[in-house]
Amino acid sequence: MPIVQIDWVEGRSIEQKRELAEKVTTAVVEAAKCPPEAVTIIIRDQPKTNIAKAGTLMSDKK
Amino acid sequence: MPIVQIDWVEGRSIEQKRELAEKVTTAVVEAAKCPPEAVTIIIRDQPKTNIAKAGTLMSDKK
Amino acid sequence: MPIVQIDWVEGRSIEQKRELAEKVTTAVVEAAKCPPEAVTIIIRDQPKTNIAKAGTLMSDKK
Amino acid sequence: MPIVQIDWVEGRSIEQKRELAEKVTTAVVEAAKCPPEAVTIIIRDQPKTNIAKAGTLMSDKK
Amino acid sequence: MPIVQIDWVEGRSIEQKRELAEKVTTAVVEAAKCPPEAVTIIIRDQPKTNIAKAGTLMSDKK
Amino acid sequence: MPIVQIDWVEGRSIEQKRELAEKVTTAVVEAAKCPPEAVTIIIRDQPKTNIAKAGTLMSDKK
Repeated sequence: MPIVQIDWVEGRSIEQKRELAEKVTTAVVEAAKCPPEAVTIIIRDQPKTNIAKAGTLMSDKK
Repeated sequence: MPIVQIDWVEGRSIEQKRELAEKVTTAVVEAAKCPPEAVTIIIRDQPKTNIAKAGTLMSDKK
Repeated sequence: MPIVQIDWVEGRSIEQKRELAEKVTTAVVEAAKCPPEAVTIIIRDQPKTNIAKAGTLMSDKK
Repeated sequence: MPIVQIDWVEGRSIEQKRELAEKVTTAVVEAAKCPPEAVTIIIRDQPKTNIAKAGTLMSDKK
Repeated sequence: MPIVQIDWVEGRSIEQKRELAEKVTTAVVEAAKCPPEAVTIIIRDQPKTNIAKAGTLMSDKK
Repeated sequence: MPIVQIDWVEGRSIEQKRELAEKVTTAVVEAAKCPPEAVTIIIRDQPKTNIAKAGTLMSDKK
């Protein structure tokens, strides 16, 4: 604990995932006053066909 | 908000995902009295090897 | 399966939850072509202090 | 209900998933005093590039 | 990792939660071949007004 | 999108939640190259009786 689950659109590079992991961990550590070792992050890559906003799939957006 | 996460068995068509997104958004808008723009949906396609009911994987069901 | 998890702001009435459960189930049944008995819904009521958009807690929004 | 969601590192065999489903279901049935039919399990296989501990991706660990 | 999230109906005793944590951890350790220290469990207690099956809230079931 | 779900131990102050929301949003914006308005965060406060590590509830840890 804390455990962080992040859903975003697939296609991000390994560098972006590395940056996400580092920066989100730092942010959580500062707010939660916990050691970095306590923070686990799960990144969930989602295809645009599997996300909808206002009833429209992201893959259908123009 | 609201945020809707739906896990179902993989293999659905894009038409089914589109219908799911439209109809679930309408349902949530009516019950929550919120604008459609407020509703985000994430669809999670799961292989039958990764779902179990009563201790049995769906891929083992006959 | 399908399993639907819905996060929304707390304070909704039992009637709204009932309407949400009925209408979302119907929507999922139509799109997934599954029987209603297969659909499970979990509603998660969230306080406004525990939701943020654009970095601002909903409880801090004016 | 109960619904169990398990995130672990991808690469497990079907035998391991079968064992996980059986044993976790038995564990939940004993603690919850519910019938096995009530227990649903979702297994989420995660690539090592999508999990971080202490700010470091598992794929970057040596 | 592994991370286990369990949703069940609220009202369980601390003894039941303790038993759930012990037994589910053992089950995961055996299937995943991981040390117990690697297993984190989150238990989510849900009121019957917030769970629906087949479109009906559990609190409305007779 | 992105959607961030954070489980941590209950008892944090509103100032800590505010700091968490601000800093995590900034971290996600930098890594994902998305506008802040796209980032939604849900904070889930968990009692120590509902979290276990290595098979032991946090409320049982000395």
